[in-house]
Amino acid sequence: MTTTSSAPLAPPPPLAPPGLRGVVVTETALGDVLGDEGAYHYRGYSGVELARTRDVEEAWFLLHRGHLPAPAERAAFGAEVAAARDLGPAVRAALPGIAAAGAGAAPLTGLRTALSLLAVEEQLRPVLDLDPAQRAADALRLCAVTPTVLAALHRLRAGLEPVAPRPDLGTAANWLWMLSGADPEARHVAAVQRYLVATLDHGFNASTFTARVVASTGADVAAAVVAALGAFSGPLHGGAPDRALAALDEIGSPDRAGAWVRARVAAGEKVMGFGHAVYRTADPRAVLLRETAQELGGDLADVATEVEQRVVDVLAQLKPGRALHANVEFYAGVVLELCGVERVLFTPTFAVSRVVGWSAHVLEQAGEGKVVRPAARYAGPAPRPVPAAPGAKPASVRPSQASAVGS
Amino acid sequence: MTTTSSAPLAPPPPLAPPGLRGVVVTETALGDVLGDEGAYHYRGYSGVELARTRDVEEAWFLLHRGHLPAPAERAAFGAEVAAARDLGPAVRAALPGIAAAGAGAAPLTGLRTALSLLAVEEQLRPVLDLDPAQRAADALRLCAVTPTVLAALHRLRAGLEPVAPRPDLGTAANWLWMLSGADPEARHVAAVQRYLVATLDHGFNASTFTARVVASTGADVAAAVVAALGAFSGPLHGGAPDRALAALDEIGSPDRAGAWVRARVAAGEKVMGFGHAVYRTADPRAVLLRETAQELGGDLADVATEVEQRVVDVLAQLKPGRALHANVEFYAGVVLELCGVERVLFTPTFAVSRVVGWSAHVLEQAGEGKVVRPAARYAGPAPRPVPAAPGAKPASVRPSQASAVGS
Repeated sequence: MTTTSSAPLAPPPPLAPPGLRGVVVTETALGDVLGDEGAYHYRGYSGVELARTRDVEEAWFLLHRGHLPAPAERAAFGAEVAAARDLGPAVRAALPGIAAAGAGAAPLTGLRTALSLLAVEEQLRPVLDLDPAQRAADALRLCAVTPTVLAALHRLRAGLEPVAPRPDLGTAANWLWMLSGADPEARHVAAVQRYLVATLDHGFNASTFTARVVASTGADVAAAVVAALGAFSGPLHGGAPDRALAALDEIGSPDRAGAWVRARVAAGEKVMGFGHAVYRTADPRAVLLRETAQELGGDLADVATEVEQRVVDVLAQLKPGRALHANVEFYAGVVLELCGVERVLFTPTFAVSRVVGWSAHVLEQAGEGKVVRPAARYAGPAPRPVPAAPGAKPASVRPSQASAVGS
Repeated sequence: MTTTSSAPLAPPPPLAPPGLRGVVVTETALGDVLGDEGAYHYRGYSGVELARTRDVEEAWFLLHRGHLPAPAERAAFGAEVAAARDLGPAVRAALPGIAAAGAGAAPLTGLRTALSLLAVEEQLRPVLDLDPAQRAADALRLCAVTPTVLAALHRLRAGLEPVAPRPDLGTAANWLWMLSGADPEARHVAAVQRYLVATLDHGFNASTFTARVVASTGADVAAAVVAALGAFSGPLHGGAPDRALAALDEIGSPDRAGAWVRARVAAGEKVMGFGHAVYRTADPRAVLLRETAQELGGDLADVATEVEQRVVDVLAQLKPGRALHANVEFYAGVVLELCGVERVLFTPTFAVSRVVGWSAHVLEQAGEGKVVRPAARYAGPAPRPVPAAPGAKPASVRPSQASAVGS
């Protein structure tokens, strides 16, 4: 919104860089991404180190409640999460319809619809009207129910019955359980857990910023998470591990990697899985997940590592100085594939993790109480008179003209 | 997202003002709000003048297509809008469940759920993958179906059958028709039409900005509109005409207005219906709607005008220099009440109008292709080592540890 000052001497405010790149919109205590150092943290703790040593619930507690949980806190939080996974009757009843309505629709659109309906069913209240404990409970509810919704939609689309969540399992194990209905292998749980913890939060990307803008109005937690899901679904948002794996398939074998990259770059296309908006060095999540893939073992891990090296080498020749490395997408796809997760579930798995970060930002923003309402510069036709309407004179609103519209 | 520069001499970027107030985030050709002058326009045409002389479809065409329509364009556009009002089978089937799930839930939460489901059912594609004509068609579809959804949800909650849209009626008349199933009076249609045209768009408020952030990711139009609805539902967003009318009820008669305002201000509470984030003079929409209320006639119009004057006088004493005037909320409530619109439908009526503005911004933003991804300043604990986990060593991901999690 542009204001035309009546004091003509004030210079007009400058136009921010496109996409608000580099504009520091707020302070946050949730974490930081150190693009030049190739590191990121949650409240001061390295995301990679947490992913190696802690489970989803511990890192989630850290983000939502402010510190790493003591054992008793961890146990109570795990019980709270497990108890918040079940669907209410209205959402449960709606899922088959959502699954059937758009067989080819993106799974996240179905999730968005279900979480919006949950806000109707449970009449979530504006965060502005809630105390911090109630806000935290709503945020936990949405994060806990997200895997349940996604797994149920996936199974319903495949013609299978949903599998109920298991309270004896943590978030990572329960996710794999609800997808297959079989006990997951411990090493797959460990690998998926690393991925989930490593991707809970990552700076002020478009979906996180969207969640914060909505939360700034004092709206309920679901309004913000539903909005973030919309941004997350945009093809420019990034973070779709299935695209990177599709590229790996297309390349086929490492000796074709060089030619493939050269062709993409010559066509002016993006090389999926490589490069990042912030990291100027290796993406630390990719480093963690490459190691995880190698530990999981198998041909795919070897092929991916070799393809990565060749692609990086060719990109260094074609785009010198850009320092393009594999990003989290590249190895996330490899790790999830090695854990037997279907490709259509790669992005949903990312959402299972990221909803924790979005809602942590909602909880932080809810305490600020200042609506985000920026300005814009008008760049259209100068103010001009409205030309005479070609049609009839508009109807009067005076009582003497009390004819009905259909008459 | 903060980047720690490896060049220590670069000064850290400054923190933007809270709520990005005054930060010029982009250019727009859609319109402008001139806060000091008490005027606003759509593409150069006064919003108030358009509201006096043009119907919803003409102003909508102006915002979405770039110019006021010639008669043939107006006719074709009206037909396009009328044809896009019907619900698809999945949304139609879901509405009773949405209405029943949360009888006391805000109507906009139900709308948000239904529009999200529409994106599933109609598999709306990312704007990034569409040409401008396809984007415009998706935007028109969402705007055209919004009143149908809102009216159906309202009637279902009241135990009534939804009323089908009528292709012979414009947006304003059809909205009143679908609510009641009776031919609306022409003067009510004219008054509601003024209100709708006057409120289609209004600067970079939180919901409009949310729509643009989501659109910047290239997501589908529904993702952006659904997100905007979330921001719109926040109590700090403003624009809830029923709150202002509730205040008018509370005041009762004009001679109690002074004491009422003094008590609110003394309690540190907001005076609903007065003051605006941008206008430093009269809100031009309030001026138009006051005149409209007076033309409609009746006691409420007189009482409202007198209360307004007394409240403004007292606010001038209590908050000198703030120049607090009645805002659009105040007289929107009066006009809608005089047209027989139920109070629970005031905010939905606002949404019928504003969805046109949100989607116009989506269409404009979709052409820009730069994801909104600002930065933040980390203000939490300094990077610190992760303490040793109190529990067991994390599971290995190596194949030798291939036990199932449940065993």
